[in-house]
Amino acid sequence: MEGAEATRIMIGVNESTIKGYPHASISSRGAFDWALQKIVRSNTSGFKLLFLHVQVPDEDGFDDMDSLYASPEDFKNMKYRDRTRGLHLLEYFVNRCHEIGVACEAWIKKGDPKEVICHEVKRVQPDLLVVGSRGLGPFQRVFVGTVSEFCQKHAECPVISIKRRADETPQDPVDD
Amino acid sequence: MEGAEATRIMIGVNESTIKGYPHASISSRGAFDWALQKIVRSNTSGFKLLFLHVQVPDEDGFDDMDSLYASPEDFKNMKYRDRTRGLHLLEYFVNRCHEIGVACEAWIKKGDPKEVICHEVKRVQPDLLVVGSRGLGPFQRVFVGTVSEFCQKHAECPVISIKRRADETPQDPVDD
Repeated sequence: MEGAEATRIMIGVNESTIKGYPHASISSRGAFDWALQKIVRSNTSGFKLLFLHVQVPDEDGFDDMDSLYASPEDFKNMKYRDRTRGLHLLEYFVNRCHEIGVACEAWIKKGDPKEVICHEVKRVQPDLLVVGSRGLGPFQRVFVGTVSEFCQKHAECPVISIKRRADETPQDPVDD
Repeated sequence: MEGAEATRIMIGVNESTIKGYPHASISSRGAFDWALQKIVRSNTSGFKLLFLHVQVPDEDGFDDMDSLYASPEDFKNMKYRDRTRGLHLLEYFVNRCHEIGVACEAWIKKGDPKEVICHEVKRVQPDLLVVGSRGLGPFQRVFVGTVSEFCQKHAECPVISIKRRADETPQDPVDD
């Protein structure tokens, strides 16, 4: 199996929902770390990681209820900040891949994460999709939905859902 | 990540349901081949494969409706044949691992495959469970159930379900 094309693993990543914590979510980092430790291991040339971040357009057009909007400039700044946040997220994963020496690609799409991820799987055709999951119980799932369950049913490639470790669960388990 | 313990991948395997074809099912072989090609690749020392075959005790106590039972000896023979069939199945996977140079273990349990697989995951604690799936539609699933869906919900480790390739589907898609 030497010389075969690299295994392409798509990883869905998102930002933390924890206020004042503009970084990769706990479950995104968990999914990434798991893929490195358990699948890629020392075989860095055998894999290519594809990071997809889906930005959710806020229903009201406001992404931060604590901000003051007084001029058209404020909205431009907001969009700029949004964009930079998404880029910072991808930068984290791309930097880590470069440190380790694994080939990678990363990109941002807008829309409903579960729909966009499945659409991108169809377009990009990875060998495997890895998504993090908060590991919520059935009662909590009714309210927040789960991207991982949807992808396991609908994505056109094998899917691994990596549950967040119990010792990493934040105060509110719906947070991530 | 050199020197870390091998990633332990449990693979649920079963026999083909196609009459007169006493070999590994199409989806079992598909799951195994996928794991080798896409995960293990050339890194044979980084992984250990754990093959679990669950034998289903027939409800009526008869495993082959076409056989003639005329004496207690026939039943003994049947049980012997059952056992040897399960062993032949595991032999196929163990032999292939030895050819490639991947460490492996294989064992047989009796019971309801989905329950036993989840129970064995709890006991053995693999890093990953790989199960083959026939990729049946919702209508067919109602009648035959799917082990892979149950395991994705209940197994206490990440699970990959590998769908059978469309060009490998037998005449009756419920067969495997």
